[in-house]
Amino acid sequence: MPKFPHFSRRSTQITGSVFEKYAAQIADQGDRLVRLHIGDTYLPARYPLPIDSEMLASNPDYNRYCNTFGIEALRAALAQKLAEDNNLSVNPENVLVTNGATNALSASMMALIDPGDEVIVLSPAWPFFFGMVRIAGGRVVDAPLYMELMSSPTLDVQAHLEKFASGRTVALYLNTPNNPSGKVLSEAQLRGIAEFAKSHNLWLISDEAYDGLTFDERPHISVGSLPGMFDRTLSIFTFSKSFMFAGLRLGYVAGNQDAIKSLNKMMVHQLYSPSTIAQQMMVKPVETRSQWLPGVRSHYQELRDIAVETLAMDTPRPESGYFVFFPVDECLQGRDYWQMIDACLEGGVSIAPGNSFGESYDNHIRICFTGESPDRLRVGIERLNKVLG
Amino acid sequence: MPKFPHFSRRSTQITGSVFEKYAAQIADQGDRLVRLHIGDTYLPARYPLPIDSEMLASNPDYNRYCNTFGIEALRAALAQKLAEDNNLSVNPENVLVTNGATNALSASMMALIDPGDEVIVLSPAWPFFFGMVRIAGGRVVDAPLYMELMSSPTLDVQAHLEKFASGRTVALYLNTPNNPSGKVLSEAQLRGIAEFAKSHNLWLISDEAYDGLTFDERPHISVGSLPGMFDRTLSIFTFSKSFMFAGLRLGYVAGNQDAIKSLNKMMVHQLYSPSTIAQQMMVKPVETRSQWLPGVRSHYQELRDIAVETLAMDTPRPESGYFVFFPVDECLQGRDYWQMIDACLEGGVSIAPGNSFGESYDNHIRICFTGESPDRLRVGIERLNKVLG
Repeated sequence: MPKFPHFSRRSTQITGSVFEKYAAQIADQGDRLVRLHIGDTYLPARYPLPIDSEMLASNPDYNRYCNTFGIEALRAALAQKLAEDNNLSVNPENVLVTNGATNALSASMMALIDPGDEVIVLSPAWPFFFGMVRIAGGRVVDAPLYMELMSSPTLDVQAHLEKFASGRTVALYLNTPNNPSGKVLSEAQLRGIAEFAKSHNLWLISDEAYDGLTFDERPHISVGSLPGMFDRTLSIFTFSKSFMFAGLRLGYVAGNQDAIKSLNKMMVHQLYSPSTIAQQMMVKPVETRSQWLPGVRSHYQELRDIAVETLAMDTPRPESGYFVFFPVDECLQGRDYWQMIDACLEGGVSIAPGNSFGESYDNHIRICFTGESPDRLRVGIERLNKVLG
Repeated sequence: MPKFPHFSRRSTQITGSVFEKYAAQIADQGDRLVRLHIGDTYLPARYPLPIDSEMLASNPDYNRYCNTFGIEALRAALAQKLAEDNNLSVNPENVLVTNGATNALSASMMALIDPGDEVIVLSPAWPFFFGMVRIAGGRVVDAPLYMELMSSPTLDVQAHLEKFASGRTVALYLNTPNNPSGKVLSEAQLRGIAEFAKSHNLWLISDEAYDGLTFDERPHISVGSLPGMFDRTLSIFTFSKSFMFAGLRLGYVAGNQDAIKSLNKMMVHQLYSPSTIAQQMMVKPVETRSQWLPGVRSHYQELRDIAVETLAMDTPRPESGYFVFFPVDECLQGRDYWQMIDACLEGGVSIAPGNSFGESYDNHIRICFTGESPDRLRVGIERLNKVLG
């Protein structure tokens, strides 16, 4: 059982790129070396591309394979961002660029758990993560937390988690800022999780996809920045949310170098590497984030307020992210839950069913307040109010 | 054991997107529906992007999540290409866009095999495929074929393969045009493989990454186009080779709809979907391929000739692709194989070691003739000649 700092059996049975052991020697020689080892083309694409010619000229390798850990410029920019924004003092070697946070989470499960191992998933949680645990052969232990913390902010988190641990527990998945609840874990709450992880010698999978999108000046704290936590934590980020580019499929992980190498081995077998040109495009946006990100965050906060104020029912004001998540069992009016979901669609508004976020939420729904313009958001919520009555 | 037409146990234990069952209803409503179900942004990126403004304006959803099976325009263009170039008369519903052929191969293994199952890998074969089988829990059965066919073109392929089959065999992996040997399988040879697959009720994983890059007017035949073979074949293609854009990480699979859905379930858990904007960029190049692809192919054929003619040793002329693959055991001059590889690097030329392509090739090396300019290719091969003596 691969508790921290060990890796899954499958991860030890495979090798990474056959060229990895020569990487330093290859890099040292620079342009002197004639590279006949990798299957690639020296030509640029022979058809027009809708990309600035200046961009293509300054990145002549835009169409070629890249270092599977990520291009140098982006890893360096991300290491600086992680230090400045997340209090994670890392080197570029601690950063792996991935095909979205999804891919980082998936590679983590493949790299860390063996069949039969248990993963504690703090819920409500992002639906695909449950499947990732199962695909790796693991067992999900669904541990409700975020909604509990809204009603009981002083809950003893470490004690609360004890009942979910077993001798088979290998990892714990947390997600703050949280999708779907909007909860942002406080430092005290994160310390409770950290102590729990240390006492059971667990890996921590810290999904920080909504990093940068906390509201009302609330800080986001990376659990890997707490004392002694970096080595056992994989801190996972994305370009899909605060960088507003889900359509690019880019994310990144920060972690100890052995873990980064193990995740890379899994990733190269899933998709080789993330896109070279996508990485080249994102260097500047990372470097300039302080110029545009505050505006995005405050606009999303306005959308959050519109959502909460337009909704006919009382819900807590989300502390972060994209979503309002709330129970609808008092609005069923004789319908069952799925009939109510159907009624929403027929009424012209689509919502996400709560049961996919964990066992305890089959009476909840999730609505996203950032995916439609303010006017359409109001229309959508008014339609929802009508269905919910 | 999931022989054709069944899928792996893990594939049956997970679901795809929670919204899939509502997809038709959601699509039908079009713009009337206010979409609050998915976590996305309605805003374009708030930082400058090095992409033509016309491209962005005509694809206002460039930065958003897309249909995880692929965007409509690209699936339609690919279905037409598959019919015209590969004799595969498919609908867009038979096409899954993936994150490179790598991702399609990886998702296939996760979707098709259970732990303990065997996969026959015709070798020499692309190194990462061996690891993909192992990650899925399978056992690789290495079946040398392509080099044998160069010396014995009339080999009875079906009879030759029989000795590699067992009761646990679930799938066979073939790759024509072949990396690294450059062999292009003839129709008769493919029929031998097809009969073998039918007689053992196997899935066929047909890696056609070098589609479009056969030389000397040699045709490439998709095994899925042979009578009765479509349903049991996953035909896997990429934008990395003939489209010259490895750095975009885009590929696609054609197959029966159930198989496409099963692969999609695995892919969404690995990376959600391939890039929206990358897909949008590739629609035109697919449609216009007859204008630029013949020039690329004939240029690569010239590079092939330069490589073979510059090499001091006699090798067969590759029938396709990027590579020359040949034994070097007579050039060791007292060195062991790895000392010889090191000597190449020290001599200023990198090559790929043969053993990563299969058990039988630890005395071979592979060189790529398309990754460097003609002048540098000549320099590299002359350096190699010097090392090999």
